[in-house]
Amino acid sequence: MKEFWVTEAMNGFGMTVQVTETLYSGQSKFQKIDVYQTSKLGRMLMLDGIIQLTEFDEFAYHEMLTHVPLFAHANPKRLLVVGGGDGGVLREAGKHPELEVLDICEIDAEVIEVSKQYFPSIACGYDDPRVKIHIADGSEFIKDKAGYYDVIIVDSTDPGGPGTPLFGEQFYRDMKKALRPGGVIATQAESPYLLPDIVARLQKVSRQVFRTVGYAGIFVPTYPTGTIGACVAGDRDDITRPARPVPPELAAKLRYYNTKIHEAAFANPNFVSRLFN
Amino acid sequence: MKEFWVTEAMNGFGMTVQVTETLYSGQSKFQKIDVYQTSKLGRMLMLDGIIQLTEFDEFAYHEMLTHVPLFAHANPKRLLVVGGGDGGVLREAGKHPELEVLDICEIDAEVIEVSKQYFPSIACGYDDPRVKIHIADGSEFIKDKAGYYDVIIVDSTDPGGPGTPLFGEQFYRDMKKALRPGGVIATQAESPYLLPDIVARLQKVSRQVFRTVGYAGIFVPTYPTGTIGACVAGDRDDITRPARPVPPELAAKLRYYNTKIHEAAFANPNFVSRLFN
Repeated sequence: MKEFWVTEAMNGFGMTVQVTETLYSGQSKFQKIDVYQTSKLGRMLMLDGIIQLTEFDEFAYHEMLTHVPLFAHANPKRLLVVGGGDGGVLREAGKHPELEVLDICEIDAEVIEVSKQYFPSIACGYDDPRVKIHIADGSEFIKDKAGYYDVIIVDSTDPGGPGTPLFGEQFYRDMKKALRPGGVIATQAESPYLLPDIVARLQKVSRQVFRTVGYAGIFVPTYPTGTIGACVAGDRDDITRPARPVPPELAAKLRYYNTKIHEAAFANPNFVSRLFN
Repeated sequence: MKEFWVTEAMNGFGMTVQVTETLYSGQSKFQKIDVYQTSKLGRMLMLDGIIQLTEFDEFAYHEMLTHVPLFAHANPKRLLVVGGGDGGVLREAGKHPELEVLDICEIDAEVIEVSKQYFPSIACGYDDPRVKIHIADGSEFIKDKAGYYDVIIVDSTDPGGPGTPLFGEQFYRDMKKALRPGGVIATQAESPYLLPDIVARLQKVSRQVFRTVGYAGIFVPTYPTGTIGACVAGDRDDITRPARPVPPELAAKLRYYNTKIHEAAFANPNFVSRLFN
């Protein structure tokens, strides 16, 4: 078995992961999809050469991106996931029995198929009978969903690929329209060390659209800089504190999210807060 | 100018940094010392092939390792820094006018010399007239300092090199003896993603020795996994909240530390808390 290293580099530094085997490599209509067997981090999914997840640390990102907005809402019934074709957000959302609607809008059907084949511990999110799959551009899909969802989670790739419209102001305005009163959004909002301009712009756009906005930092080793964050926003008095307790049977299953870290994630280092003011 | 990449890899993944020039490479009595000019992250210091700091992100680590224990203490007068030869902890500690004693015990005089030559924005910590340099093994130095210091900060390399005794139970017992009543320690306590056994052991040892103990997570991109933490402990009711406010003139200078993130850093993800119980 011949090992090699796969590197994602940007702005002069990068993450490098030791790989033992390429399990899948293909070009979909939208992007290049690669699946690797790593030596220590389980399997790894890359889209257009960018690490999307490893089995080792995907729990950190998926739990925070999902449970922060769902617990920031007092009584969520209808969830839309935009992107997130791997199924990780769905898997976490499926742990909420209070949800009645669990829609996912993914642009690239091949990401779903590849995830089902190579990442069963993540794509198991699709096994939930409440899940309905919509293969479409999320920025178009939500335009006619006025006042329907309680929570929208955007698990997107970086700007530049097919996820680009999901970083625009119009999409944030359309998400607001698609929410019922008191609704909450959470979007993949990049690292303040790596892409401070994008982190700042998403907060600015969100503040123009929503009453309450925060940036929640998450420790995720295999994203460059080891940091990523969620832009969480809503027309509520607060989204930085859970609106309800975590049921003990759910808490026991979670590896990252808890009530304290929900609030703590919104305490930003000064250099991050200063991006916003 | 020929660029190349310098990689620190461990357990199947690593950080890789683009470098334009090797500024210094030498072997001290204790370790290999390398200084690189990176393309985007300023200068970088490596000891025995392990990234110690880059000018880009050293503020995160040095501010948290210094200001968390100093603000956890109500009235610190005497500080000991063990390790930290680059001067970064001294630079941050120098921002506290209440300190009367600012001792540093570094085992490797060459780290100090190299830092003064190549990292003036960090080694400026030595310019403070309160600083007294002791070239010695910190684990020996503190043995006859009973009841002297208010705060001890251990800015060590990883176990394996010259810093190995600083990870042992005896050193924690000796630190406790070297403190005045109400004293606080903070030690470089590794990443729970990369070295969970060490993170767990340092917490266990600290809990046997001190009344109050916590693990404070810090986002530092150029350490592998992008995460590092401080083990903070003391014979006080609480170390997870500042014992006093940050003076506004200091707050304005800080790029990472603030009162909220002091407390937030101690909110651990579940997989970290479970290491401790």
